[in-house]
Amino acid sequence: MSETIRISVDAMGGDKGPRVVVHGAQLALKERKNIRFIFHGRKEELEPLLDEFSDLKPVSTVRHCDVVIAMEDKPSNALRKGRGNSSMWAALQSVKDGEADVAISGGNTGALMAMATFCLRPLEGVSRPALAAIWPTLRADIIVLDVGATVGGDARQLVDFSILGAALARALFDQEEPTVGLLNVGTEEVKGLDTIKEAARILGDASGRAGLFYHGFVEGDDIGKGTVDVVVTEGFTGNIALKTAEGTARQVGTYVRNALNANLLSKIGALFATQALNALRRKLDPRTVNGAVFLGLNGVVIKSHGGTDEIGVKSALGLAYEMSRNRLIDKINDGLRRFPVASLAAATTPEPEAKPA
Amino acid sequence: MSETIRISVDAMGGDKGPRVVVHGAQLALKERKNIRFIFHGRKEELEPLLDEFSDLKPVSTVRHCDVVIAMEDKPSNALRKGRGNSSMWAALQSVKDGEADVAISGGNTGALMAMATFCLRPLEGVSRPALAAIWPTLRADIIVLDVGATVGGDARQLVDFSILGAALARALFDQEEPTVGLLNVGTEEVKGLDTIKEAARILGDASGRAGLFYHGFVEGDDIGKGTVDVVVTEGFTGNIALKTAEGTARQVGTYVRNALNANLLSKIGALFATQALNALRRKLDPRTVNGAVFLGLNGVVIKSHGGTDEIGVKSALGLAYEMSRNRLIDKINDGLRRFPVASLAAATTPEPEAKPA
Repeated sequence: MSETIRISVDAMGGDKGPRVVVHGAQLALKERKNIRFIFHGRKEELEPLLDEFSDLKPVSTVRHCDVVIAMEDKPSNALRKGRGNSSMWAALQSVKDGEADVAISGGNTGALMAMATFCLRPLEGVSRPALAAIWPTLRADIIVLDVGATVGGDARQLVDFSILGAALARALFDQEEPTVGLLNVGTEEVKGLDTIKEAARILGDASGRAGLFYHGFVEGDDIGKGTVDVVVTEGFTGNIALKTAEGTARQVGTYVRNALNANLLSKIGALFATQALNALRRKLDPRTVNGAVFLGLNGVVIKSHGGTDEIGVKSALGLAYEMSRNRLIDKINDGLRRFPVASLAAATTPEPEAKPA
Repeated sequence: MSETIRISVDAMGGDKGPRVVVHGAQLALKERKNIRFIFHGRKEELEPLLDEFSDLKPVSTVRHCDVVIAMEDKPSNALRKGRGNSSMWAALQSVKDGEADVAISGGNTGALMAMATFCLRPLEGVSRPALAAIWPTLRADIIVLDVGATVGGDARQLVDFSILGAALARALFDQEEPTVGLLNVGTEEVKGLDTIKEAARILGDASGRAGLFYHGFVEGDDIGKGTVDVVVTEGFTGNIALKTAEGTARQVGTYVRNALNANLLSKIGALFATQALNALRRKLDPRTVNGAVFLGLNGVVIKSHGGTDEIGVKSALGLAYEMSRNRLIDKINDGLRRFPVASLAAATTPEPEAKPA
């Protein structure tokens, strides 16, 4: 498909200001020609940057916004202060208005979540949006969600997350029936929370005729093994798991670096292995897997890491591009249609009648 | 201190049978001469093993038990079937009776937790025991708890875990006032659960005059950095974090191995660096940090990993030895005495009067 993808960018989001965002866009454009950008933010900062990154200029539009959401703004404050007039909101509004295919921001996650939910609204049948991470494993990339959109969650929400995650796996990995596992503690012992058991029952009943195959419970170490295509958990645990893994990868990476600097022989060894070690460094570079996806909204929104640089922004823009090109929203809607939502709603809510979808 | 430490061993616990347990004890004895062992289990299996590992025989006693708790037994079943007559129970009973200083088992975690709580009883003033892991970080070893003794937990329990973890840090690392952090999600956004905020308030009030220094919230990646000496969370999240980190360490280790096998030059490089890479391998070997500690009971109980081998058993026995030698229980009791439990109880329970401790 050579259709042009239009990306709406919150150019003021992120810790490092608009320069890394615009620079990242220039790098993304080098890899994929058919992109158009709409940059939302302060004209007086963005226009000189576009003059500097001149390849970008012909495919970009700047929309001036004065208000910038700060990293420390609480979601409720952000909504009050930035609804309608901030660069973050404007980036989302472009998707809502149909002038962009996908929005991206490196700003405050909580504020982005609140604004995206408010502006784009959850998809019919989805109780709560989630933030999904693309997680490299020993087998292949997998999806882990929720990694911090909300804290807590009942069985119904875990099932929603499963449907959303499976749809994302279909969009990204081209798998017709992704395997889904519910994150839980030790299999032989305490079997975790009642909400997880209830979600397991619902997913087990629908498995194989709802666009996903329910694998069962998985444990923390199954993530890195790539036991399933989609790992589902509530946002608190998911966020802790994601950051613990990032910390551990950095820790082991430091051990390896120190080991190869330990003595003269190891330094010589590292010289011989330079090429392989550089490939390893690229593989472990967190910037190459930057970008989490807000799932369950009427529109695709990508969260880029606030502290990343132009390489990280480029990766997140690449993810935005792929999400759009692979028609993520269509696949999610298809997933929601195929999953027996009516029986599900009846199973988890006290109402005798399920709402028509 | 050259006093002899008496270790009571559930010789039947673990996936690999009594051989690795007895072999591990022989290895532990090589490193620390002043140990005595009581092995609980099937005489007909244990006595031939002691004949084989003959250094061990003079310092060991065998106590016959017919009943063995299976890895798949539910805690309640385990209690019914094994109370009073299983090797797991007998290992704990020896500590209760004062004939051993510490008990160790590689059996079913849930069953061990239930039996230990039933047999040894929680310490006065402790609402719930916890399972604590010793976690290697970039700075130093730290304590993370609870890693799966129980699921969920209120503010009071998180505070108890903080006191217990700080006491363990004092016993293991000889720090007078360890720093404690509460595991939470992103600092600038959703600030996590109310229970965590409440625990933070209590710990903040008591910080610096209760045998610990309260650092504040920490995130998942702070664990590997070693930001604090003690990371506190409830058992579900703690278990997921621990296993996710194990999985990630294994994953990155595999990447490194593959990179060094990638081509002829990298293989030559690995040869030069053999010594440093072997040191790294030992550092990353999960068997060297085997052993989690049940905290908050009238007695020290060590959980060894069920799937480990004799090297892992040796590490867990070494941990048991150190816990005992450093008078863990005294340090925990001291921690409980120093923490203002009365104000704490008043802050978190509806009763107007706190129970006398």
